[in-house]
Amino acid sequence: MKKIRDFGVNIGNIEIGERNQISDVDGVMVGHTTIDNADIQTGVTAILPHTGNIFKKKLRAASHVINGFGKSAGLIQIDELGQIESPIFLTNTLSVGAVLDAGVSYMLDENPEICDSTPSVNVVVGECNDMILNNIRVQSITKEHVYTAINNSSVNFEQGAYGAGRGMKCYGLKGGIGSSSRVIEIDSEFYTLGTLVLANFGRMKELTIDGRKIGLEIYKKLKQTNDNGNEREKGSIVVIMATDAPLSHNQIRRVASRASVGIVRTGSFLENGSGDICIGFSTYHKIPHDKRNIKPYRHEEIHDDDIDLFFRAMGESTEESILNALCSSQSLKGYKATLYSLSEFL
Amino acid sequence: MKKIRDFGVNIGNIEIGERNQISDVDGVMVGHTTIDNADIQTGVTAILPHTGNIFKKKLRAASHVINGFGKSAGLIQIDELGQIESPIFLTNTLSVGAVLDAGVSYMLDENPEICDSTPSVNVVVGECNDMILNNIRVQSITKEHVYTAINNSSVNFEQGAYGAGRGMKCYGLKGGIGSSSRVIEIDSEFYTLGTLVLANFGRMKELTIDGRKIGLEIYKKLKQTNDNGNEREKGSIVVIMATDAPLSHNQIRRVASRASVGIVRTGSFLENGSGDICIGFSTYHKIPHDKRNIKPYRHEEIHDDDIDLFFRAMGESTEESILNALCSSQSLKGYKATLYSLSEFL
Amino acid sequence: MKKIRDFGVNIGNIEIGERNQISDVDGVMVGHTTIDNADIQTGVTAILPHTGNIFKKKLRAASHVINGFGKSAGLIQIDELGQIESPIFLTNTLSVGAVLDAGVSYMLDENPEICDSTPSVNVVVGECNDMILNNIRVQSITKEHVYTAINNSSVNFEQGAYGAGRGMKCYGLKGGIGSSSRVIEIDSEFYTLGTLVLANFGRMKELTIDGRKIGLEIYKKLKQTNDNGNEREKGSIVVIMATDAPLSHNQIRRVASRASVGIVRTGSFLENGSGDICIGFSTYHKIPHDKRNIKPYRHEEIHDDDIDLFFRAMGESTEESILNALCSSQSLKGYKATLYSLSEFL
Amino acid sequence: MKKIRDFGVNIGNIEIGERNQISDVDGVMVGHTTIDNADIQTGVTAILPHTGNIFKKKLRAASHVINGFGKSAGLIQIDELGQIESPIFLTNTLSVGAVLDAGVSYMLDENPEICDSTPSVNVVVGECNDMILNNIRVQSITKEHVYTAINNSSVNFEQGAYGAGRGMKCYGLKGGIGSSSRVIEIDSEFYTLGTLVLANFGRMKELTIDGRKIGLEIYKKLKQTNDNGNEREKGSIVVIMATDAPLSHNQIRRVASRASVGIVRTGSFLENGSGDICIGFSTYHKIPHDKRNIKPYRHEEIHDDDIDLFFRAMGESTEESILNALCSSQSLKGYKATLYSLSEFL
Repeated sequence: MKKIRDFGVNIGNIEIGERNQISDVDGVMVGHTTIDNADIQTGVTAILPHTGNIFKKKLRAASHVINGFGKSAGLIQIDELGQIESPIFLTNTLSVGAVLDAGVSYMLDENPEICDSTPSVNVVVGECNDMILNNIRVQSITKEHVYTAINNSSVNFEQGAYGAGRGMKCYGLKGGIGSSSRVIEIDSEFYTLGTLVLANFGRMKELTIDGRKIGLEIYKKLKQTNDNGNEREKGSIVVIMATDAPLSHNQIRRVASRASVGIVRTGSFLENGSGDICIGFSTYHKIPHDKRNIKPYRHEEIHDDDIDLFFRAMGESTEESILNALCSSQSLKGYKATLYSLSEFL
Repeated sequence: MKKIRDFGVNIGNIEIGERNQISDVDGVMVGHTTIDNADIQTGVTAILPHTGNIFKKKLRAASHVINGFGKSAGLIQIDELGQIESPIFLTNTLSVGAVLDAGVSYMLDENPEICDSTPSVNVVVGECNDMILNNIRVQSITKEHVYTAINNSSVNFEQGAYGAGRGMKCYGLKGGIGSSSRVIEIDSEFYTLGTLVLANFGRMKELTIDGRKIGLEIYKKLKQTNDNGNEREKGSIVVIMATDAPLSHNQIRRVASRASVGIVRTGSFLENGSGDICIGFSTYHKIPHDKRNIKPYRHEEIHDDDIDLFFRAMGESTEESILNALCSSQSLKGYKATLYSLSEFL
Repeated sequence: MKKIRDFGVNIGNIEIGERNQISDVDGVMVGHTTIDNADIQTGVTAILPHTGNIFKKKLRAASHVINGFGKSAGLIQIDELGQIESPIFLTNTLSVGAVLDAGVSYMLDENPEICDSTPSVNVVVGECNDMILNNIRVQSITKEHVYTAINNSSVNFEQGAYGAGRGMKCYGLKGGIGSSSRVIEIDSEFYTLGTLVLANFGRMKELTIDGRKIGLEIYKKLKQTNDNGNEREKGSIVVIMATDAPLSHNQIRRVASRASVGIVRTGSFLENGSGDICIGFSTYHKIPHDKRNIKPYRHEEIHDDDIDLFFRAMGESTEESILNALCSSQSLKGYKATLYSLSEFL
Repeated sequence: MKKIRDFGVNIGNIEIGERNQISDVDGVMVGHTTIDNADIQTGVTAILPHTGNIFKKKLRAASHVINGFGKSAGLIQIDELGQIESPIFLTNTLSVGAVLDAGVSYMLDENPEICDSTPSVNVVVGECNDMILNNIRVQSITKEHVYTAINNSSVNFEQGAYGAGRGMKCYGLKGGIGSSSRVIEIDSEFYTLGTLVLANFGRMKELTIDGRKIGLEIYKKLKQTNDNGNEREKGSIVVIMATDAPLSHNQIRRVASRASVGIVRTGSFLENGSGDICIGFSTYHKIPHDKRNIKPYRHEEIHDDDIDLFFRAMGESTEESILNALCSSQSLKGYKATLYSLSEFL
């Protein structure tokens, strides 16, 4: 599984983390369930924000909708309260209901007090439409797939055609899961920002790698056998941002919104039919579900004078995550088409 | 099934529609599936925005979040595109996933082209938490319940402890489904605005009916046997607004947001733990899913000089819908408590 | 100058502060410049958030737009950064430019580094339209008026027809400046929340005092001489909220938004032509303009489990502030009409 | 005055309009007042949305805030009502008050009924901080400058260091006013989209022209004499979008928001200290101020299936406008620095 750096392309100037993955943020783990069964090419990816009980120890979070042609669940409460209290799940568009239902079951299993002695839980699900490679109308995701993804979670996880990324298409090529990270120094402290994308957007002709319009080159090369660069955009991208830096809800929102910088740099015009959603969280503070005996929290946040470092890291890491999603997948024949890996053209 | 007007209380000055229900807006139908089975007291309510194929003929729509401690699905796309393209479903908080999954299945059944030759569908689900009367952790709603609710839809529908309203609690009393409508005259044309609420919010002491602080009276009366007026608010309210008037997306948003007026007038402080969500739509224009051969739409909208009539109607109709939800339900013994009907105190 | 409590009306249950004014929040001061000159009946009110240099020591802040038919300046930056860095000025609609210009001059005077060695300053101005009592088209506010208002600032300030409130009309009666406060206890700590309103909205018939529809009574009494209850709403209300509690930006936003509860309880339907704007700030943390040598801030915030107390206090204090604005002004003959004081009807 | 196309750089694929300026949208005119007086290097630019009375015949409009570190006036009402009713003025940050005051005066002159027999007027002002080339603390803009800018308005107008663009700095080079346009064909009808930018943002090292990282080259070349590429970003950009296509308020908002695509393509990371604001309007429908006798408007809008053409045009036209701002200005020695023209490096 090659990454874009393996092809000599280094995005931006900021240092990358140890694994160059979202799991460089301490505590973040990712797990996939991948379905590879003839016309069914889809899956579930679970992002666990920390290793403890996320309902009992919530994290500051925020979302940003770049273009809302999407069916994500759970964003309204994230933005009202500035917190997440569940894993974040990714899947195909028509399985959001099934994954949401299973995610709720999982949270109920883990927390007997939910909807018994305490209010309900907000489960977050993002999605993209994999109808080209996957017979999505079958709604094939089950509760077991969701639990398995959680159980598979690890700091080491696959990128490319795994989990929710299995059937995705990006810039007319094989898309999927990609990840990257950046390390920022502020006042002699080091902070990590990591991103994970489910990349399923864009037209082939427009793919740009660090300024090179490679999509047009590929388009010309593939023209006779695979002329899908012209069709109506039906894609989407979900960007998950994690950081261990002490950011406030509002700062997370602002950093997460810079996902658009990374997306645009790969060639996108942020098209109408795309659900472009960012969800960010900080692992710095754990917010107890129950207030009991807690005096006002002492917590920390960075000064806005330092926030540009995070904006820049977010742009770079999102851009590299998308390119990693494109590189790390192999070519795949699915339901209605064969999609090629970017790695074949580099 | 008595309504608040049967007790001599007339909310506001604007004329009501023929049925004084949301179905006074031509084409709007409502159907319930009600589960009444010992500890399981819950259900599904489906609002069909018009009698045709809502995916092929979409409606202008908008949502407004008063307080986002809620788990509704589908709002992001409503607000990006200003349209709805599915029925609106209401259910309990932990069944949003199941209802969303079933709602998607229904849309796939009706529209073979979805995620085949055309992009995906956005299904809208609202919810409140019925954990007091319903053993909600069982996640008892199935696909069949959703289909049945759709099939039961009619211009005549029950209010009170039916459908999603089965297990709801409002102002410490039995809550549920309520509805009302208003008729507005502009330039010799008559327009109808109707609302339907799933009412599950508020503390008993604060219930106010047209200025009368009746909640405090009831609270004193019930004190020894049912002192639930003091607990932490875990409620919510979903308000659906329909109109046959030519309102733009932005006008619908503004009108829908006046749901808060009706909610506050019944005594609420719009508490933290409440998911207070409004979704509005206009049946005036049908927007074709496929553009083919359509020149720019000729459509119509009211002048903002007339919009105060709709603001006022929205406030009145929401207020009356909440009171109808309270009146029309009988007292009910459920999972963890018995809740009384407001009608016993009027 | 009588307040609504002097007439035996006590709004809500929460204890009031020492002065029952926004200046019960330690450090907050208010100053007026009042112009009473035949057809010119207008002014400026300055709210100083703390006694130090507000540019060098900023405060957490947020705004909420209930209805945006208004011309306030400065809200965009408040919401992006979650901070205020200037006094808040109130004036008439057509003088926002002059007051903004003078407010900037004042900040430049106080801070030689602005736009020299450091970036610019964001000055906040709210407004209502006093065209009934004031010949507003004259644009009579000058720089001196603004400086005088600042210099007049004190913890003791007048309510009613003073400062920006001079020419305001509310519920068809004499409106103006009103204020109130509430004291909240959390874990044996006491916090104060205060509000100040510039009240210039509503139709006479709809004025409601703690459930009593007194507006209709006044309307009938005044009918022959002052039938202005029917005209198109041209009003607005600006609500300023201050607290010494450790609230985050997002918490301030949520608390400030409950101004709508107080407004609705006095009888309003939140009409189209009204610019209904809330601006809130917390004095708990002073955020240094320059970051130098500051490690991540240690700051505090309340747990959301306690936020309902603030929501409730905000509703009550806003409601009482509006009624105080109505009570404390005497009847006034101005440019185009004579408006009566509510105190004449109590 | 050379444009970027004169240097052989063609941005995007869509056809440009006749003048390649915002005034290709029929009725749109632009006028400048330029102050070139030693340390005072600033000005005012007025964009007139149509040739008639804009208060009596309003236009559909929307704004989008990319990053709200800015002091624009008038956006709140644009977004609430979806309309503009005044010219749009651009100036330096500390003169927003003066320009707003003058803009109001102008509207009062033109419309004796404002704040007499009809409510108030919402004047729109955008700004950037020209403190490097202009002694901005002098607040040198007067009412006469604003009136002159209006009177100077024409379909032919200067780009570069004129009007509000006089003292602006962009990517460490001389910034200012830039403009471009695109022509779109839908169903055999032709529509024009034009943009005008006030460009005052970005770091030299990051300037990118159609993929070429020219900023880094310039930075190395200028290093010894002008090393300002490292300083804290204090810039901003205002993007005005005009179109003659029938777009709804929501469609205008969505198109305007794609200004970010053009900004990012020139190299920006959308930094913290930048006020990045877009305001868009459509000249297709004139909305009468007075409703009288008007039945619901018959108006038109495009189908969302065609909106990607506008998104793309917006991205391209914004990108080209920024590059035109950089090219068309000559090098300028001002208050604190000399800034070079990009044209010297092409």
